[in-house]
Amino acid sequence: MVVRVAVAGASGYAGGEALRLLLSHPEVEIGALTGNSNAGQLLGSLQPHLVPLAGRTLEATTPEVLAGHDVVFLALPHGQSAAVAAELGDEVLVVDMGADHRLKDSADWDAFYGAPHAGTWPYGLPELPGAREALAGTKRIAVPGCFPTAVSLALFPAYQGGLAEPEAVIVAATGTSGAGKALKPHLLGAEVMGSVTPYGVGGGHRHTPEMVQNLSPLAGERVRVSFTPTLVPMARGILATCSAKALPGTTAESLRAAYEKAYADEPFVHLLPEGRMPSTKSVHGSNAVHVQVAYDESAGRIIAVSAIDNLTKGTAGGAVQSMNIALGLPEQLGLSTIGVAP
Amino acid sequence: MVVRVAVAGASGYAGGEALRLLLSHPEVEIGALTGNSNAGQLLGSLQPHLVPLAGRTLEATTPEVLAGHDVVFLALPHGQSAAVAAELGDEVLVVDMGADHRLKDSADWDAFYGAPHAGTWPYGLPELPGAREALAGTKRIAVPGCFPTAVSLALFPAYQGGLAEPEAVIVAATGTSGAGKALKPHLLGAEVMGSVTPYGVGGGHRHTPEMVQNLSPLAGERVRVSFTPTLVPMARGILATCSAKALPGTTAESLRAAYEKAYADEPFVHLLPEGRMPSTKSVHGSNAVHVQVAYDESAGRIIAVSAIDNLTKGTAGGAVQSMNIALGLPEQLGLSTIGVAP
Amino acid sequence: MVVRVAVAGASGYAGGEALRLLLSHPEVEIGALTGNSNAGQLLGSLQPHLVPLAGRTLEATTPEVLAGHDVVFLALPHGQSAAVAAELGDEVLVVDMGADHRLKDSADWDAFYGAPHAGTWPYGLPELPGAREALAGTKRIAVPGCFPTAVSLALFPAYQGGLAEPEAVIVAATGTSGAGKALKPHLLGAEVMGSVTPYGVGGGHRHTPEMVQNLSPLAGERVRVSFTPTLVPMARGILATCSAKALPGTTAESLRAAYEKAYADEPFVHLLPEGRMPSTKSVHGSNAVHVQVAYDESAGRIIAVSAIDNLTKGTAGGAVQSMNIALGLPEQLGLSTIGVAP
Amino acid sequence: MVVRVAVAGASGYAGGEALRLLLSHPEVEIGALTGNSNAGQLLGSLQPHLVPLAGRTLEATTPEVLAGHDVVFLALPHGQSAAVAAELGDEVLVVDMGADHRLKDSADWDAFYGAPHAGTWPYGLPELPGAREALAGTKRIAVPGCFPTAVSLALFPAYQGGLAEPEAVIVAATGTSGAGKALKPHLLGAEVMGSVTPYGVGGGHRHTPEMVQNLSPLAGERVRVSFTPTLVPMARGILATCSAKALPGTTAESLRAAYEKAYADEPFVHLLPEGRMPSTKSVHGSNAVHVQVAYDESAGRIIAVSAIDNLTKGTAGGAVQSMNIALGLPEQLGLSTIGVAP
Repeated sequence: MVVRVAVAGASGYAGGEALRLLLSHPEVEIGALTGNSNAGQLLGSLQPHLVPLAGRTLEATTPEVLAGHDVVFLALPHGQSAAVAAELGDEVLVVDMGADHRLKDSADWDAFYGAPHAGTWPYGLPELPGAREALAGTKRIAVPGCFPTAVSLALFPAYQGGLAEPEAVIVAATGTSGAGKALKPHLLGAEVMGSVTPYGVGGGHRHTPEMVQNLSPLAGERVRVSFTPTLVPMARGILATCSAKALPGTTAESLRAAYEKAYADEPFVHLLPEGRMPSTKSVHGSNAVHVQVAYDESAGRIIAVSAIDNLTKGTAGGAVQSMNIALGLPEQLGLSTIGVAP
Repeated sequence: MVVRVAVAGASGYAGGEALRLLLSHPEVEIGALTGNSNAGQLLGSLQPHLVPLAGRTLEATTPEVLAGHDVVFLALPHGQSAAVAAELGDEVLVVDMGADHRLKDSADWDAFYGAPHAGTWPYGLPELPGAREALAGTKRIAVPGCFPTAVSLALFPAYQGGLAEPEAVIVAATGTSGAGKALKPHLLGAEVMGSVTPYGVGGGHRHTPEMVQNLSPLAGERVRVSFTPTLVPMARGILATCSAKALPGTTAESLRAAYEKAYADEPFVHLLPEGRMPSTKSVHGSNAVHVQVAYDESAGRIIAVSAIDNLTKGTAGGAVQSMNIALGLPEQLGLSTIGVAP
Repeated sequence: MVVRVAVAGASGYAGGEALRLLLSHPEVEIGALTGNSNAGQLLGSLQPHLVPLAGRTLEATTPEVLAGHDVVFLALPHGQSAAVAAELGDEVLVVDMGADHRLKDSADWDAFYGAPHAGTWPYGLPELPGAREALAGTKRIAVPGCFPTAVSLALFPAYQGGLAEPEAVIVAATGTSGAGKALKPHLLGAEVMGSVTPYGVGGGHRHTPEMVQNLSPLAGERVRVSFTPTLVPMARGILATCSAKALPGTTAESLRAAYEKAYADEPFVHLLPEGRMPSTKSVHGSNAVHVQVAYDESAGRIIAVSAIDNLTKGTAGGAVQSMNIALGLPEQLGLSTIGVAP
Repeated sequence: MVVRVAVAGASGYAGGEALRLLLSHPEVEIGALTGNSNAGQLLGSLQPHLVPLAGRTLEATTPEVLAGHDVVFLALPHGQSAAVAAELGDEVLVVDMGADHRLKDSADWDAFYGAPHAGTWPYGLPELPGAREALAGTKRIAVPGCFPTAVSLALFPAYQGGLAEPEAVIVAATGTSGAGKALKPHLLGAEVMGSVTPYGVGGGHRHTPEMVQNLSPLAGERVRVSFTPTLVPMARGILATCSAKALPGTTAESLRAAYEKAYADEPFVHLLPEGRMPSTKSVHGSNAVHVQVAYDESAGRIIAVSAIDNLTKGTAGGAVQSMNIALGLPEQLGLSTIGVAP
């Protein structure tokens, strides 16, 4: 089987990471690479780490250029995916790494994104209950946000196990690639190095409703989520520190058991032995999710921590994993659980 | 007035920072510098940034060497301060940058430190209600822990204003100097750079009972604290992201008003204008505390964030500030609110 | 004496560093602060580390706004200083932190900057022979480039002592603040962190002719300079590794003696004891220059290494030092040799 | 073909990187993993990024444990490889990632390492003329040092082309993993971040004679090498900035041609298009070498710059590449030219 894949938005971080992974995928052949303002430039000058593609030229993102592929990855600004997908035809697998098709509730979409809602596609977080079934054979995939990936995998066993109150408090640290290649003063190296700063404080981050959407069905009621992201001095990685009050009867043992059960057969989720802590370095460049959980008896809270690479499992790796499922390929094909460390 | 100051433990990060600040203090003359394993070495080889002291030799930490000073700063491992202080006489101002004399509750001390409790000294966080009165004229100062400094200043106006439930959830990012100069594998540069990792997960960090001790009197009842520190790739700085459920009737306006009232006259606490976020870089090397607070209506929580330099306001700067009060000097003498940025 | 100082270009890194230092200068009162695209904004949102100036508003850079000050610091893009200075009058001390008035040779200026040459002002590197005399009482100061500062101070004793051949090879590492706040993709934190990259390879960097200009008079002939700067993952600091073939008769002893003689009385240059190496961290935020020199007998070369803070001694600190000399104030006023470390 | 590989010294950075690469090698089966002080520990606690090996236990480094493998990788302290190799038998391929068998000149070995010289093995830098022939079928491989790899590949075409004088000046920046996991104060994260510092200044670095050994045969005479390494704030990567005076007749064109010729068919060396610069990030985790060269007419020097990952091409990747050649496997098997960026 040869799967011919185009990547729209190949000059950015998400597009570059998709190409990095697709280059190592044994069934994939890389087709058109498109950009917008960068059309006409060599990929070698934009993504110098992708040596095998150094001589490829970016084309404009048009239906003609994207036509004739089995799969199209979209790494586009919010609000642009639906129009592109509409032109591609139903037989093409469209993998949207943007936000446009993640949220089920149009009101959430309106409140946090402020554009017309493009509708919902099967959600590419295979570890969530029921997700693999929805992804099998689909031609449309909504790749989750990076924070919702980390948070949902940290917390869902606690909710699935009926152990946690429906109020979650989350503080996540992210590397600056999560903000993309946008030229903003606060993303300059001189600002970022040696500094930690929060943003979206007070419930303003767009990934919040996506977390609510993922966790509520497991809790059996609407989970209120308090989410604060912080920007830390590294290029890649997310560490999500999540907590919720434990429901009566929860013990350290029942908590551990819920996580062991949830992740016994998950190829990419690595529940760490007790006492060992996740670190973003351990998952650098890999599709692995490292998870630890503890019960703080004094505070009466469950503390669950996860580490992912925001560009790999948090974006392009999760996208490839879901693509594999949609195409009927082995889920782990072209993906690794081995981080590049130190 | 010339205040003659000795520093015991001058080779470590806390001792070095105390010297950096004391060198710029107009009333201070630096006396004996002592070390333990480093006695006999030149300070220039241990603290190469302190050029004016490069030719000074570290002496052993003995009562004879420390005698004859007006003030002695102790930057010693936990459990060693009491014995040294006992030898110094009641007329000497002893400023303990270690943990030995912070906790009032011996049971907390036993549970988290496991050594005999050395008793409680006036607590060197002048911004807490009543603290300045206790520090004025004292000959013994317990310098707060770095995390309790950041957390207490982020949250106390919310508790003082009667706005928050007595359950606080705190996630704090710290630079690696907070762990001291100890030679541990996880503190190596190659491990630390590009990585974020939590520790003390589940309530194990020793600074937790100190936070409870600081916040509970303001809340009028025991505050349960869930505290998770994370190690981030920077040398200095703490960003504390703190939250608590809002009590009924709390509004964004009442919250803001409580913080404005609490910090209107504090020389080192800088309540940021609405919408602007603290960053550790802005307080690098300074004694300033940058604070922001927001009300997340959807989650029903108060989010308060503070940034400090863990070595300055979090340790040696707070120590100098309290020393100034104890000696009857202007509180800001030798200290600055100006960070070294970018 | 109260010296009233305006800063034109107060929103950038050089302007911000000038303000940081001027705020601590006992004889300075800060006057107008101007910007260009940022006029009308609060300084607190642009330079959040300068808490005492948080409420000041940037004005436009006009002769009217800059009038009425004793000193005007210019932190402007290349080519703009001469016009502004011309409007200020001869009684005002103008301190140009840009490149416009550094080079004596118009041909060099044309080749490397490509604009009309604005003429030469007294050169603000007081440690060079004859420089203090030229600066005393002057009303115009050309602040040196950051790399020429580091390189000239590393190498001049070797040339002054007649020990080195007139061909110098220099590789310098710089923190990314050296590139300013310009929004360029390669300066994004995600690009910079974890990466070292050279630029201006092959003799293209604009600071090269300035090095030639500084070293040649000491060598007694034109020094050919090969200069390669590299961008490293830190916000501040320059480490210049400089070498030249030793002339016959040079020994380790004669080399050391030349440096000891040159720097015996320099308040800001700290010649390190043999075997101890400069580090940029040791001079972080300070006006100190740490220098070490060694004779590599096997290669027949002199290796001289210097560390400075590019924004302090390399720009704004050097500017304040020269201002002090020009105004007849003590040279060290408002400046420190103490770095902020770790 | 299944190649059974043991790794001695699996707890360090070189051993960990070897395992990371061997895990992805399609013909390799990982056998015994040994350590010294860490014997008995789980690999998961020492190398948490190697998830597939998390449950493996380190054994002691003994002949019995290492017996029965086709290949043994040695990641041992200097001076220990010869004794271990002697016990392994001539039919086992021994890949020594340490320095013991690199130098041909015993006097160099004595001067720089100070232990009895263990003899010379075929040198694992396949890109050097004649190297592949020497490696084919060998049972002993001396893996080059990381700096000599970067420097030799930057400079050899200039010497092979007869374009450069036999005096090379090299300044290289290295990530701190190059110093290994040794617990030394200057390698602590708080010291390393925000700082650049040189070491081995004046010709003292052990890799210097290895560079001389590699370059001299190409120059046709002994090349004098001035080498200064600098430690920069990143975990991985080397950027080597190398220069030599151009011999008369050298032009930018002849220089470029020499490099194009030398690297036309090299699978891992990527000569960048003119004007594009190497960066360590582009080769992060990959076996690629990015090279650029320029002729500085004004200084009369050739400037050649190379970027490698010190742990991959500089150590374990080079080792796997040479192993492939020795075993008659395709040279690129299990290796990639794609970096993990940003």
